[in-house]
Amino acid sequence: MKIGKGVEWAAHACAVLALLPPGAALSRECLADYLGVPPPYLAKQLQALSRAGLVLTQRGAAGGYQLARDAETISLWDITAALEGTAPRFRCTEIRRNGPCGASSAECPAPCDIAAAFQQAESVYRETLAAVPLTQVVAGATAVATDGRKQRIGDWIQQNASGLS
Amino acid sequence: MKIGKGVEWAAHACAVLALLPPGAALSRECLADYLGVPPPYLAKQLQALSRAGLVLTQRGAAGGYQLARDAETISLWDITAALEGTAPRFRCTEIRRNGPCGASSAECPAPCDIAAAFQQAESVYRETLAAVPLTQVVAGATAVATDGRKQRIGDWIQQNASGLS
Repeated sequence: MKIGKGVEWAAHACAVLALLPPGAALSRECLADYLGVPPPYLAKQLQALSRAGLVLTQRGAAGGYQLARDAETISLWDITAALEGTAPRFRCTEIRRNGPCGASSAECPAPCDIAAAFQQAESVYRETLAAVPLTQVVAGATAVATDGRKQRIGDWIQQNASGLS
Repeated sequence: MKIGKGVEWAAHACAVLALLPPGAALSRECLADYLGVPPPYLAKQLQALSRAGLVLTQRGAAGGYQLARDAETISLWDITAALEGTAPRFRCTEIRRNGPCGASSAECPAPCDIAAAFQQAESVYRETLAAVPLTQVVAGATAVATDGRKQRIGDWIQQNASGLS
């Protein structure tokens, strides 16, 4: 029932990419350095984000990763879904139809209250994460950052991003 | 990220126990027969429900399982927690503190928006399941059952439950 660490890494990686100016990109090694995780650990996450259309890969010496669309349109649910998939967490196997007192089709016009409650719970979980765009994550982090740290982050991007004009 | 099938089995098993008159009990074999699942499959679930204080085991020939408290006070969250635990699904490892631009303690007065959003999502998930007591599950199933099926269920309980007066 746990969410893999990869979701946390991927969310933070996307938040870093959201800091880049348009057209700029960061290599996997630079992203991993910024996040303090070993570069191989990020490979799977970046592949999943790429497959889901959330990041783009620029090839070549000046290449790297960048967000594939505006950070305002990428939510924490998008990132979670990219990493963990969108299949329902609760699978209903229609147990009510089983056994000596099993319900007939006519008695099952809708999901039972057990299946319905889990569907509803997953729906509100998803909506909560979908309501948080990367821009909110960045704004929240920026609001508590000191001027000195903002400067360090700006300098680090200047030194490490490719495609800067 | 999936919820094990055991939660579905356990929820349905508890819903069956909620049908019993006070003092009555059902063996694991009878419960498994009612649900149409192999008896060994239910062993782990019943142990977990017992450890969580949701069911009681009566030993002996007239023994079996019964709810440990009123069905109105047992929610789908109680059952999920009994089977899957209550540890947060999303584990924050404070990635924002890492790397060359890591945040200082003073810059982390509260969880970041990523951790906060996952905490909030888990909270609404939990609350949705906590709002559904076994009595609602039973009422929903009863509302769509034909009179013939209600009779079959009553007869089955009479034939299979122990401790009936």
